[in-house]
Amino acid sequence: MMSATADDPALYNSLVADLLGVLAYGELSAFERLSSSARYSPTLHDRAVLGRMAVVEFQHYELVRARLEHMGLDTEAAMLPFQPSVDHFHERTRPADWYEALMKAYVIDTVSADFYRAVGRYVDAGTRELIGQVRSTGESTAVLQERLKAALADDPRLASRLALWARRLLGEVLTHAQRVSLEHAFLAGLSGLDDAGAKEFVSGLTAELAANHARRMAGLGLAG
Amino acid sequence: MMSATADDPALYNSLVADLLGVLAYGELSAFERLSSSARYSPTLHDRAVLGRMAVVEFQHYELVRARLEHMGLDTEAAMLPFQPSVDHFHERTRPADWYEALMKAYVIDTVSADFYRAVGRYVDAGTRELIGQVRSTGESTAVLQERLKAALADDPRLASRLALWARRLLGEVLTHAQRVSLEHAFLAGLSGLDDAGAKEFVSGLTAELAANHARRMAGLGLAG
Repeated sequence: MMSATADDPALYNSLVADLLGVLAYGELSAFERLSSSARYSPTLHDRAVLGRMAVVEFQHYELVRARLEHMGLDTEAAMLPFQPSVDHFHERTRPADWYEALMKAYVIDTVSADFYRAVGRYVDAGTRELIGQVRSTGESTAVLQERLKAALADDPRLASRLALWARRLLGEVLTHAQRVSLEHAFLAGLSGLDDAGAKEFVSGLTAELAANHARRMAGLGLAG
Repeated sequence: MMSATADDPALYNSLVADLLGVLAYGELSAFERLSSSARYSPTLHDRAVLGRMAVVEFQHYELVRARLEHMGLDTEAAMLPFQPSVDHFHERTRPADWYEALMKAYVIDTVSADFYRAVGRYVDAGTRELIGQVRSTGESTAVLQERLKAALADDPRLASRLALWARRLLGEVLTHAQRVSLEHAFLAGLSGLDDAGAKEFVSGLTAELAANHARRMAGLGLAG
């Protein structure tokens, strides 16, 4: 499903550059945050596990960068407009400990995978494939889920704290995703929807992301 | 040049396990510290450069881990004895900004490359080759050196601060290396030297590391 912008390659490219810019900066930030959190892991084994996940995020960053360069675009320039909002998001969601870092990684991974999958409907096949590669967090997600389950089984008092934390994270992630999508207007541009249509799309998407999140939290035995 | 421990494979393996344990933990820590520092880079380009270096450190960690596992040894168990001293070293050398982080990476990379090269004389060919791979920091070192030179050219006031910082780092690195070598006795064990001989070897090595460091600092235009 291609949009009206297919007729205007320059506009289309600039919208895709925005999309890849926020994706690249998201990956670079995720790499830094995960590897910083790794240090606070309860065991050396967990440190290495988190470190390995961080490295995967960096490799995804490199994939997006290669794509931007292939399009003749500068990665730094593409990322810059999104730096303040992504940084702000991370400032507002500093994990207090390793378990919160784990939950943060899990929530961001899964919700953003859903988000990019939805947005991927509106881009060309090459870009969609790239998004698929970068967001195919299957393995990392499974590791995070397993580790969270184990932690919750070991210490049931964690459950209420992590449930609360996950709700806060969901709120922050969704607010961030809405702001980025609407402010930078790439969602409207790519989908060919007018302002009202784009807002409606974002509302529908938000509801879908929240419902999927609630299902995953229930899977962990937590109240969504 | 093999040592007396060649006659005692169990002892030899345990000494190599110590050597690889401190190497592995050093790489894992370097990965986390570098990627945490990356966030404070002055530009997005620099962030990615530091991130890439951090990823290389993690890949080195994975190489050492694979070797330990190949030897039938547990990586966590091999690293644990060295965790307090490596952590302590990093606590004592927290960079105040990105330039100090850059200098720290440069000093650690180069001095430890010299250190492991010297120790490599006393191990079997396979272990020596692994150490060579892990410590072949040629590319990263060149990037760090170039970036430091550029920073010093941009802001000459940095020179006196970084010269002081590099001297402190050298002192801490050497103290750490001596402590690790002597306390854990693997240097004595591997070299087949007695206590006095090992101390003498460590003194000679220390002088050599310091002289090489001074030469590199002069290369940056800094007073060693």
